[in-house]
Amino acid sequence: MGGDHGPAEIVPAALHALQVHPDLELILIGQEPVIRKLMRASGALSDARLAVMHAPEVVEMHELPSAVLRTKKLSSMRLAIELVKDGKAQACVSAGNTGALMALARYILKMLPGVDRPAICTTMPGIHGETHLLDLGANVNPNSEQLFQFAVMGSELTSAVLNVPDPKVALLNIGAEEIKGNDMVKQAALLLAASHLNYVGFVEGNDIFTGKVDVIVCDGFTGNIALKASEGVAEFLRHHTRTEFERSLYGRFAALLCTPILRAIRRKIDPRSYNGASLLGLRGIVVKSHGGADRVSFASAIEEAILEVQKNVPDRISSRLEAILTQGPAA
Amino acid sequence: MGGDHGPAEIVPAALHALQVHPDLELILIGQEPVIRKLMRASGALSDARLAVMHAPEVVEMHELPSAVLRTKKLSSMRLAIELVKDGKAQACVSAGNTGALMALARYILKMLPGVDRPAICTTMPGIHGETHLLDLGANVNPNSEQLFQFAVMGSELTSAVLNVPDPKVALLNIGAEEIKGNDMVKQAALLLAASHLNYVGFVEGNDIFTGKVDVIVCDGFTGNIALKASEGVAEFLRHHTRTEFERSLYGRFAALLCTPILRAIRRKIDPRSYNGASLLGLRGIVVKSHGGADRVSFASAIEEAILEVQKNVPDRISSRLEAILTQGPAA
Repeated sequence: MGGDHGPAEIVPAALHALQVHPDLELILIGQEPVIRKLMRASGALSDARLAVMHAPEVVEMHELPSAVLRTKKLSSMRLAIELVKDGKAQACVSAGNTGALMALARYILKMLPGVDRPAICTTMPGIHGETHLLDLGANVNPNSEQLFQFAVMGSELTSAVLNVPDPKVALLNIGAEEIKGNDMVKQAALLLAASHLNYVGFVEGNDIFTGKVDVIVCDGFTGNIALKASEGVAEFLRHHTRTEFERSLYGRFAALLCTPILRAIRRKIDPRSYNGASLLGLRGIVVKSHGGADRVSFASAIEEAILEVQKNVPDRISSRLEAILTQGPAA
Repeated sequence: MGGDHGPAEIVPAALHALQVHPDLELILIGQEPVIRKLMRASGALSDARLAVMHAPEVVEMHELPSAVLRTKKLSSMRLAIELVKDGKAQACVSAGNTGALMALARYILKMLPGVDRPAICTTMPGIHGETHLLDLGANVNPNSEQLFQFAVMGSELTSAVLNVPDPKVALLNIGAEEIKGNDMVKQAALLLAASHLNYVGFVEGNDIFTGKVDVIVCDGFTGNIALKASEGVAEFLRHHTRTEFERSLYGRFAALLCTPILRAIRRKIDPRSYNGASLLGLRGIVVKSHGGADRVSFASAIEEAILEVQKNVPDRISSRLEAILTQGPAA
């Protein structure tokens, strides 16, 4: 159990998920004594749907994926992925070291046929609806064919978990005109335009938050920076809003009056409800929670995993890729 | 005179700038009858410090830079840059087609020695201070040496216009660890670490808005998308805030009470006061205003140009680059 808060937030999130989903079974993997103690503190009784597995090793947040692969054979992360591999669990949720999680998942679960590398995909809230954005950092330098694979995976995930029949797929670029952008996106645009996907063209950075399309595809370098920059601007706005409201007695009074409104706004835009990024392209379901996730946030990541299990996302991606390889380009 | 609003916003911005700066002289270039009419409507009398020059051609926002270079010899954009080239103006400010502005500026003014291509640089507000971010879209695929040139230019601009003696320069990356990122940033990191610049390492996307460093360098593809994504999230938050406050009578009452606070917040974070991106690396000063700029916003772009003239930014960049080429790497 990784992340900034570890079991202290993950155990309560797990107990909450068990309450909400009567059919859910969870295996908590980590430092068993710590987990048991937290379970007792939360008043959790022994439960047939809740198992605890001890993991003697810990993957630190700064460790290199290659070193983790070589040396940490008994970390909670590795044990969890092995349970998925062996069919003893249907999904793995982790708030730990992203690079290590990806390397282990790729090594143990293997890729689906037709996928070169996993991509990290998350849901972004938007003015007119949600958008799935990928890749968020798994592939810093993909080629156009890999971007095409991301598009297929993002499209299948969206149609599966959001029930969108034929998701609108776009490429992230620095302008909507065909002449803009680097060679990678221009080549990917040709591949997508010739495919059976519902490809709608290029969108710009601001469209990540308009909800104008269902899936936005980009390389992992750009996606990661766009995501972090967005977090940065939200934090900047929050900082100044708080500072101004707290500056004066009048401001504190006004803030008090606004409490119900601010609460309603927070419900709409709470990033915690969007926590849980999917590692797509693997022969199994792996969901990455934000490292700083609290219990509310981690519970969202568990929800994402449940949904992907129910919708059988890896099989859907696999079938779609097979169909594309068989049927060739659209007319 | 380009941009979404054209002379209707630019003329009032120009008249305002003349009032604020008693030594300023402006030449307004565009459709003369339209400009004269707007001047009369604003009650502007004839002024020795304000000239109007007619430009019979217009560069449209969607036109290809190559076509503009070839065919639009009498556009306001081209005439303005030629005035800079001929020493009849000290800076050009435009809200028009960015690609065309850059191509014309590069073709007419030429690059400074030691600079391959211009970079677009703007000031970003941050929690602990401002940061200059470049490139914002001029170079979608720079190499590491070009990133190094951006760093030099950004550092000189910052020390000139913000009076920061030895600006902290960072590279935008997807993690602070040295192993992260693509080859381009890794190579650029080596060049910067060996230079006399105050290079502090990698920062992540959220640091664009923390003000932790003075200059952040990235390729134009990433920079443009980070900037637009930030605009998108700000618009998304504004949308939901407005919607919730307007939803009920209570909300509208609360909003009224908050007016002074909201106004104070807006003063702190108003993107209009950060309008005006510098095209760096040219033998002359060219400032690009946001296409959607209103008069307040365009006036900020004029301010940026005035400051760069006062501080002689191109000469400073040129001297610094020459010093670097002469002195070689730091010990």
